[in-house]
Amino acid sequence: MIATNPIDVLQALIRCPSVTPAEGGALDVLTELLEPLGFDVQRMTAKAEGTPDIENLYARTGKSGPHLMFAGHSDVVPVGAASDWTVEPFSGEVRDGMLYGRGAVDMKGGIACFIAAYARLVAKSGAPDGSVSLLITGDEEGPAINGTIKLLQWAAERGERWDACLVGEPTNPDELGDMIKIGRRGSISGFVTVHGVQGHVAYPHLADNPLRAVSAMTQALMYPPLDQGTENFPPTNLEVTNIDTGNTATNVVPAKGRFDFNVRFNDLWTADTIRDELLRRLDIAARNQELRPGRDPIRYDITWSERPSHVFLTRDDALIQSLSKAVETVTGRIPKLSTTGGTSDARFIKDYCPVVEFGLVGQTMHMVDERVAVSDLETLTVIYETFLEQWFEHANA
Amino acid sequence: MIATNPIDVLQALIRCPSVTPAEGGALDVLTELLEPLGFDVQRMTAKAEGTPDIENLYARTGKSGPHLMFAGHSDVVPVGAASDWTVEPFSGEVRDGMLYGRGAVDMKGGIACFIAAYARLVAKSGAPDGSVSLLITGDEEGPAINGTIKLLQWAAERGERWDACLVGEPTNPDELGDMIKIGRRGSISGFVTVHGVQGHVAYPHLADNPLRAVSAMTQALMYPPLDQGTENFPPTNLEVTNIDTGNTATNVVPAKGRFDFNVRFNDLWTADTIRDELLRRLDIAARNQELRPGRDPIRYDITWSERPSHVFLTRDDALIQSLSKAVETVTGRIPKLSTTGGTSDARFIKDYCPVVEFGLVGQTMHMVDERVAVSDLETLTVIYETFLEQWFEHANA
Repeated sequence: MIATNPIDVLQALIRCPSVTPAEGGALDVLTELLEPLGFDVQRMTAKAEGTPDIENLYARTGKSGPHLMFAGHSDVVPVGAASDWTVEPFSGEVRDGMLYGRGAVDMKGGIACFIAAYARLVAKSGAPDGSVSLLITGDEEGPAINGTIKLLQWAAERGERWDACLVGEPTNPDELGDMIKIGRRGSISGFVTVHGVQGHVAYPHLADNPLRAVSAMTQALMYPPLDQGTENFPPTNLEVTNIDTGNTATNVVPAKGRFDFNVRFNDLWTADTIRDELLRRLDIAARNQELRPGRDPIRYDITWSERPSHVFLTRDDALIQSLSKAVETVTGRIPKLSTTGGTSDARFIKDYCPVVEFGLVGQTMHMVDERVAVSDLETLTVIYETFLEQWFEHANA
Repeated sequence: MIATNPIDVLQALIRCPSVTPAEGGALDVLTELLEPLGFDVQRMTAKAEGTPDIENLYARTGKSGPHLMFAGHSDVVPVGAASDWTVEPFSGEVRDGMLYGRGAVDMKGGIACFIAAYARLVAKSGAPDGSVSLLITGDEEGPAINGTIKLLQWAAERGERWDACLVGEPTNPDELGDMIKIGRRGSISGFVTVHGVQGHVAYPHLADNPLRAVSAMTQALMYPPLDQGTENFPPTNLEVTNIDTGNTATNVVPAKGRFDFNVRFNDLWTADTIRDELLRRLDIAARNQELRPGRDPIRYDITWSERPSHVFLTRDDALIQSLSKAVETVTGRIPKLSTTGGTSDARFIKDYCPVVEFGLVGQTMHMVDERVAVSDLETLTVIYETFLEQWFEHANA
């Protein structure tokens, strides 16, 4: 295994079946690679009742600032039916220029390219003037309770401080160079139960159909749109993810109805203000329900997801420009600075230092035949190496 | 058992545990009562695959017209937990002026009063100049496949023709004399499945959330109201009775959504025209769904209940007036001529002759402690007797 060759490194990592919560040997491979490169490698096992123990890794080289963190995860999602795959999903086989395997793009590929980039940089011009660390969790695809969030706390308690972080998640929708993620919308889910009065459909005045309110309340959540987006963020978007009643009798008005929704909100809102706005809409819709005289307004309960994700936007120009220029220099393409998409562990890291995300092309992530172009591995390695040079140059200027 | 005493007759009937589909001895009691009054009593057992055999009864006295039919059912709904009842539910016990028992008002009470009324009429002034028949089914509370609809066919095939029919169902909401039913709204149910595209809530443009359409389509079915009612009918009313998705993951846009509805429609519509109008509304709502460019319009399937109930209005003035005047004469109250409420077997009878409905107070029907005021039994008997006199007087005039 040659550390400067991302294909070699990625194959070694894919051959470790590290489906969450299993370590699968992946952290051992990283240890073997990083120690010869001068990293002090530490393993940290996190525990929580009701969840499996998770092994995590933190490796640092250098003693002084500036300090750059590379963050990622060594765990992968299950392969599904292995027989549906073109190759054995933990083989790392290359066919027609594509390297196949679970984790190829999400995100053992990103880790492999970063290690290769660092190894090449050291071989070319020696260790950078500052520190580089890798924060690698085994619990990104799982409940994420024993992963990045605890590993960051653990390291911070030991005095670790970072100036910037690059997350190696696959961020490019179609081609390498498409997109850097510089922030993320917030996310919160609501769970609503509407209470009506059961009855016979032929006597609707003796009943209160909660589904009238469910229909009106779901409309009110969606329309009018919550906003039109901002300079850096797409419009806030709400999706009703579930409506359930469980009434099969067509002559019966049901006693209650349930629905769930999730909203991804931009920087016009906080978790509190979006909650308030949605409650306001729900209240109006509930009050507007036609009611027979003398009946109380329609009653509903709502609970919210326990830990909302907060919206964030990274404003560190040096970090964003170092990465953006590196992408442009190597690929000739100007990456879009985006805040779209699902949450990632960047939502935890942003509480410690500015964070950006750039990795491989995500198209096959979580799918059968997850795969990466061998040429993309080489290109990403060069991008990461260029970024390392430019970031340390900026930071030491 | 004295036929002229409705309390005696009702107690004898209640003591027969004729929970659908059981005959429970109820038709034997009727045979014993009707034969001495000059009725030719016939029993007819109806069968259909997948349903229990049902015993029905048809009894006629008189050979010539005019011919009045009294229709009802001897079957009752289950008692639930007998221990919740104040008295044994098949005892027919009288307490504080109330006769308790399953079927007391729905509708062994109506049958008892009609038999007592006929017996009194004959005792007072001899058999009426014409024919009277009783059409009693044992399958009104069940699937109604082996009941009134088949019994009518069976009798019609044997040459039976009727000039008018009185159904003895409990029609009075609060007090005896409140309401005569002179027609009924139609009823049809729809079952809709909306097909979307599953996906991640953070990438709504890659998914098509069927619940957006479910929300909009249910609104479109309800608003604007279908009509404002007519001279004889309340407004057409639609209730969404069920919405189900079965998706518990708040980060997933579900692949499809389901909903069911039932509409009770007045004489502005037929089953065909209301179906067309609802389809028109669903199509518009489905087409109006915001879709990402290039995607097909939202797709949905709909099935309809197999046998819609058709709307009908009885226009036989002599029948309605005879009954209305009888109620007014006996109770001093002018009954409301109504088309509200759920369907009854009148929907089958209306294809053979004009039909009206009048019986006891329905408040305790299908409930624990179903019961009737003993005084109401006496009053209804006098109303029925007066009606018989007046109807035959009219019909023979």
